[in-house]
Amino acid sequence: MATRDVKLLGILTSPYSNRVQIALNLKSIDYEFIEENLHHKSEFLLKSNPVLKKMPVLIHGDKPICESLLIVQYIDEAWTKGPSILPSDPYDRATARFWAAYIDDKWYPLFRELRLEREEGKAAVIEKIVEGLVLLEEVFGKGKAFFGGDSVGFLDIALGCYLGWLRVVETTVEVKLLTEAKTPELLGWAERFCANDAVKDVLPEPAKLIEFRRMRLARENVPAATR
Amino acid sequence: MATRDVKLLGILTSPYSNRVQIALNLKSIDYEFIEENLHHKSEFLLKSNPVLKKMPVLIHGDKPICESLLIVQYIDEAWTKGPSILPSDPYDRATARFWAAYIDDKWYPLFRELRLEREEGKAAVIEKIVEGLVLLEEVFGKGKAFFGGDSVGFLDIALGCYLGWLRVVETTVEVKLLTEAKTPELLGWAERFCANDAVKDVLPEPAKLIEFRRMRLARENVPAATR
Repeated sequence: MATRDVKLLGILTSPYSNRVQIALNLKSIDYEFIEENLHHKSEFLLKSNPVLKKMPVLIHGDKPICESLLIVQYIDEAWTKGPSILPSDPYDRATARFWAAYIDDKWYPLFRELRLEREEGKAAVIEKIVEGLVLLEEVFGKGKAFFGGDSVGFLDIALGCYLGWLRVVETTVEVKLLTEAKTPELLGWAERFCANDAVKDVLPEPAKLIEFRRMRLARENVPAATR
Repeated sequence: MATRDVKLLGILTSPYSNRVQIALNLKSIDYEFIEENLHHKSEFLLKSNPVLKKMPVLIHGDKPICESLLIVQYIDEAWTKGPSILPSDPYDRATARFWAAYIDDKWYPLFRELRLEREEGKAAVIEKIVEGLVLLEEVFGKGKAFFGGDSVGFLDIALGCYLGWLRVVETTVEVKLLTEAKTPELLGWAERFCANDAVKDVLPEPAKLIEFRRMRLARENVPAATR
């Protein structure tokens, strides 16, 4: 596959772009990464995703595909060679899609809530974040390497790309979110996921995310005390 | 397929339940409809969808599948006999999923906004609803019977099930949302969709929806003037 055939418009510190990078790596697809600027979006991006105007966008040939989880599904369906990303059984596939939507719509928005919350409200939000992780620990089950079984799959990608920001919260709020006591399976899973060949060069260093966060907060004029 | 194998927990006036009913009809799957009460959810429902506690839930054998668009995809993938609901081409499939998500996440929430908006703000919301329909008119293109081509497909189901509530708004707010001037293709499509064999006995009568709306507003204590 020639590089010019597949382009990814994204941001290297974005979990959503990371999802697509990992899916492309899993399928051994060569691609060109085009780094976008969150605050000065390129004409190419705006033309490719005129409705949502958001990253990431995968350009396959001349066709744009938008929304990270839809792109991951597209990659799985368009490149049938290489390992499957979604489970082959329809029920397992529906279940993976359900939990991926739960992670994006219910669980991860708690991180934004945490950022906006005053000091006294943070504990309650952290409790909800951990409750979500305990739920996902149940979904994971026991004795597997990944949500997808022996190899990285759809739900691994959906949750795993938030691990960087989870680490940032653990550092900045000084709290442990993944613990041996409550989420022992996910603790081991997170290590395996980050060390995986398709993942390890994609996930940004925590220091990079903390710097990205500092710049974003400065831009948003959030008082230092509530950062 | 014996009826006891497939159960649908839903509400007959809900667009989300209607989506699943239509998908089951398209595949000629015999099923038992179990009518739920929005305000007194059954133990069966709460056990089947403990995370979101929402209708519809499809029970296939003893397995619950939640979230209407995920259920429609599941039906398409689990019963491969019968007409395909999603397009066969991966890019067309990604596009259909993108627009279905747009309809659910961006466009239909405007109806709720309209309901909550005071009289003076309604015109702006109606304009946004129509803008969304004009966008979907472009997606539809020209000279087709359905979004899915010759037959009802994923995007037809996603948008079509809101037609009942669209008609209710047209009646109660006294405005035309689908018009010959701005959305001539969708106007014809809406007629064909509602007359389709898999659809016509599923979509509730507007009078039923207006009564349902009246009861819901009374329960929410919305003053009559803002209904």
